[in-house]
Amino acid sequence: MKIAFAGLGNMGLPMVNHLIQAGHSVAAYNRTPARTMRLAKGIVRVANSPVEAARDAEVFITMLAEDAAVDAVLFGKQGAFNGLSRGAMHVSMSTLSVAFSEHLTAEHDAAGHAYVSAPVFGRPVAAEAGKLWVVAAGMQEHLQRAQAVFAAFSQGTFTVGSRPALANAVKLAGNFTLAAMLETLAETCALVRKLGIPEVEFLNILNTALYKSPVYESYGNLIAGRQFEPAGFRLRLGLKDVRLALAAAEAVEVPLPIASLVRDRMLAMVAGGAGGKDWAVLSELAARDAGMQ
Amino acid sequence: MKIAFAGLGNMGLPMVNHLIQAGHSVAAYNRTPARTMRLAKGIVRVANSPVEAARDAEVFITMLAEDAAVDAVLFGKQGAFNGLSRGAMHVSMSTLSVAFSEHLTAEHDAAGHAYVSAPVFGRPVAAEAGKLWVVAAGMQEHLQRAQAVFAAFSQGTFTVGSRPALANAVKLAGNFTLAAMLETLAETCALVRKLGIPEVEFLNILNTALYKSPVYESYGNLIAGRQFEPAGFRLRLGLKDVRLALAAAEAVEVPLPIASLVRDRMLAMVAGGAGGKDWAVLSELAARDAGMQ
Amino acid sequence: MKIAFAGLGNMGLPMVNHLIQAGHSVAAYNRTPARTMRLAKGIVRVANSPVEAARDAEVFITMLAEDAAVDAVLFGKQGAFNGLSRGAMHVSMSTLSVAFSEHLTAEHDAAGHAYVSAPVFGRPVAAEAGKLWVVAAGMQEHLQRAQAVFAAFSQGTFTVGSRPALANAVKLAGNFTLAAMLETLAETCALVRKLGIPEVEFLNILNTALYKSPVYESYGNLIAGRQFEPAGFRLRLGLKDVRLALAAAEAVEVPLPIASLVRDRMLAMVAGGAGGKDWAVLSELAARDAGMQ
Amino acid sequence: MKIAFAGLGNMGLPMVNHLIQAGHSVAAYNRTPARTMRLAKGIVRVANSPVEAARDAEVFITMLAEDAAVDAVLFGKQGAFNGLSRGAMHVSMSTLSVAFSEHLTAEHDAAGHAYVSAPVFGRPVAAEAGKLWVVAAGMQEHLQRAQAVFAAFSQGTFTVGSRPALANAVKLAGNFTLAAMLETLAETCALVRKLGIPEVEFLNILNTALYKSPVYESYGNLIAGRQFEPAGFRLRLGLKDVRLALAAAEAVEVPLPIASLVRDRMLAMVAGGAGGKDWAVLSELAARDAGMQ
Repeated sequence: MKIAFAGLGNMGLPMVNHLIQAGHSVAAYNRTPARTMRLAKGIVRVANSPVEAARDAEVFITMLAEDAAVDAVLFGKQGAFNGLSRGAMHVSMSTLSVAFSEHLTAEHDAAGHAYVSAPVFGRPVAAEAGKLWVVAAGMQEHLQRAQAVFAAFSQGTFTVGSRPALANAVKLAGNFTLAAMLETLAETCALVRKLGIPEVEFLNILNTALYKSPVYESYGNLIAGRQFEPAGFRLRLGLKDVRLALAAAEAVEVPLPIASLVRDRMLAMVAGGAGGKDWAVLSELAARDAGMQ
Repeated sequence: MKIAFAGLGNMGLPMVNHLIQAGHSVAAYNRTPARTMRLAKGIVRVANSPVEAARDAEVFITMLAEDAAVDAVLFGKQGAFNGLSRGAMHVSMSTLSVAFSEHLTAEHDAAGHAYVSAPVFGRPVAAEAGKLWVVAAGMQEHLQRAQAVFAAFSQGTFTVGSRPALANAVKLAGNFTLAAMLETLAETCALVRKLGIPEVEFLNILNTALYKSPVYESYGNLIAGRQFEPAGFRLRLGLKDVRLALAAAEAVEVPLPIASLVRDRMLAMVAGGAGGKDWAVLSELAARDAGMQ
Repeated sequence: MKIAFAGLGNMGLPMVNHLIQAGHSVAAYNRTPARTMRLAKGIVRVANSPVEAARDAEVFITMLAEDAAVDAVLFGKQGAFNGLSRGAMHVSMSTLSVAFSEHLTAEHDAAGHAYVSAPVFGRPVAAEAGKLWVVAAGMQEHLQRAQAVFAAFSQGTFTVGSRPALANAVKLAGNFTLAAMLETLAETCALVRKLGIPEVEFLNILNTALYKSPVYESYGNLIAGRQFEPAGFRLRLGLKDVRLALAAAEAVEVPLPIASLVRDRMLAMVAGGAGGKDWAVLSELAARDAGMQ
Repeated sequence: MKIAFAGLGNMGLPMVNHLIQAGHSVAAYNRTPARTMRLAKGIVRVANSPVEAARDAEVFITMLAEDAAVDAVLFGKQGAFNGLSRGAMHVSMSTLSVAFSEHLTAEHDAAGHAYVSAPVFGRPVAAEAGKLWVVAAGMQEHLQRAQAVFAAFSQGTFTVGSRPALANAVKLAGNFTLAAMLETLAETCALVRKLGIPEVEFLNILNTALYKSPVYESYGNLIAGRQFEPAGFRLRLGLKDVRLALAAAEAVEVPLPIASLVRDRMLAMVAGGAGGKDWAVLSELAARDAGMQ
């Protein structure tokens, strides 16, 4: 397939490589061109603008940090939107807001584009291994077409309905559960630490005797080791996702009390200057509130 | 070893059986005698009172629901405390409050008894399989002696210090993380359900793509299947544990905002009459607050 | 002065009457024309569109329920914005979002209009008595000009700076404190009621011995009398204001944990169908969570 | 009447003076004898122990900081309890827990003593002016007898039922509303301050245009002036009262989400070392969480 790909971050870059390996033809665009140097020369075509990348593409994939970035790439100066031919498909793999995804659905519909929303679970290391999980929503036939793309870098796809925004809701809900887990671990770690039990021991007990989960293990290690830089996932982005989960829930009148609480905790840490650190840094607030800093 | 065992509930009964299989001599006591009928006749000696069970015992094990029950068995009429000889050891395997465990430490010290606090992680099915996890605290030599007991029904022991109450704190903190997880799953399930995504699909995505945890799987099944009776762990007991975690934390001046929030949610459900159901029933409150009941 | 006035609700109508009595010339616009029937005929000029009202006006006052309504009146079809002459002043007296007020500031600036944001404290009865309190922000000279307007229906004006949006922030913060008070009274009423003490007695003690506040008295009466219809201030609007306070605070990185909590409580009541009732209806949720419904 | 009075703090001392002025005969006891030096010599009889004070007393009044202090004065070494004659009355004017007040009810009943619980609203300055408000509960005939005492230092008495503990519940609920108000003011002050509006201006607007309450005024002044020492009411005691409100509510299965939230905020400040300051110091936490310290 002829694929255009926008967003060559820690996730996007390995995804492009997998697409090439799977035999697709890829034109790549990144706002800061330096990142394109890491692409296999001669194999990936580098586009100087989104619209240039989009021209001739059967599938236009975006893997960008937030609504605003996707908005700029699609509708900004030399945006891809007008370059997409009727029948071309936009596959958005970012963690977008539900409202913006609804907006994209309407715009693409009106223009005769296919649109699939397909955020992924998995960190950069999973992207490199081609082991991401895709949560996709859209029209049945679009999802089928997109599956050839997903197969290149994922170990499985979950489909959650025909409204693309549903996939975004699932992704946001999932990220919110991670934030809630971080705050919960933070609070319990503050307690055991003040009682004199090393956090690393407590977290080891918790995961060995109870959760047996790689997620608890990896975040436990970050918390116990106070390893918040470089950030695997920045607190500021985590806060954004919890905010978007709250907004999506408010739109359908669903209160999320834990999300509200965690939002406030994250916001306090961002206000204190930790927005650029890994979101496991949330654990510092519980320690501070326990009088331990 | 000569062991006395008080508390023949869903956990205690299989533990006694494992102790017998491991070659120990056991005298068992239960408040309601009917439960003792399930013991292997002629092998386990049935005691008519705690003090009768405790007499001659090297180790007196309690596996009871709460502080008050342990208090009654030890210090009530025909209580075990006065029957224990100097040098005998009390191994408390219940989820007690930190304060009560401190109290037991002082009482046993004064009487020349050894005291080990050793609550377990694991549900009845793990007890039957001899696969519990023990979290133990106490003096080094007491812990060593107790290990022969733990080996009979557990797959491992974590020791967390010489103050017995520390083991209770770890157990309470662990149970609080489960309560927080339940409320988090409840909120996200209310959201996705109101958006039209079946809870079972969402929970499957969450655990396949993210947590990969048997705990998320089993509780996810209870929530998605609305299977709250019979209770694996009653909401009323879960509320008690979160309350005890908050009390233990307040005693050392550690705020636990998520525990406070979850306590209030559990309390609302108990006030509504659900105290006897499995604590996964907490998910009903999030659904109700979303206007879905 | 030549005044144009948009929004003839329970607040706007008496405000217009006071402006007439003070000798101003008023052209009034309301989306649903029926309301204009209540105006003194021949004295108030009825405009058929915002732009018609705005033409020739020295001051254009908006007293509307929310951002969207002001947006429509200014920038919608036959909107007032293009009818305002350079040097004319827009006085917005609604409870707008901080972000929208910033937006208006920029738009008016660019068009050479003066802009003053001046939300009011006070209920319809205070508007009728000409006893509102105005919280105003804007450039010094604009505030001075607007004072002639405010004097007609208020007992005092507070100025809070030259950035118009600051007045909106103060108004939103004030409304949030009311919401927090309502939830606090709701919780304590649930407690005393379940203990057998009539809410009316408790609220009487509270206000006599402690607060001595007309606000506590009037809301106390609504709660104790379960008088939620007709709504003095609809729950749905109250929720909107708390949400806007949270948004204004998030924009400057200030967590408001009580606002988050109250938002979730209000949202649950709105989800349950109470959005059109007086926001004192929040008290029903505390009663329900106490198992009393 | 022959009155014994235990507890000569900032509240108790002026109360004793008013009792003397009203013509009662008073025997006073204080744990630290130095305070008794401030009593009118020759008029107030100083007792060296609670039991000595209680002997011959018709009414034994306690005005002490907490359960433990009342427990010590009544049931400790040389405690008053055994000195009280049958028919004598204990009037407890402290902010006790509901559970302890129930305990006192049972003990006094068994011993043939009358028992009235009668906590007061009002700060030391109101005690000096004889302008306290009394919230009393107990048997009708006991309340009538006690009224002669209350008249000496109060401007009014509210009676809330025959179960003495109900008066404690009302007092605790009232104090919780103050704590909630403090946290609400703290959050809004953090917001307006970060926006550049002086807290003192905001608080002035709030109380002039909205609450018109001496309580908002006096606490507003403490917050805006950052005047937390000397403490009018110590944070540690405020935290205790919110905790007791939560405990009283949990006993009858009533969730108090705002109380839980405020408890955690107060606990964080106590953990940080502010327990001895005025509880208005809670405002510092909101400022800190906004990144302003």
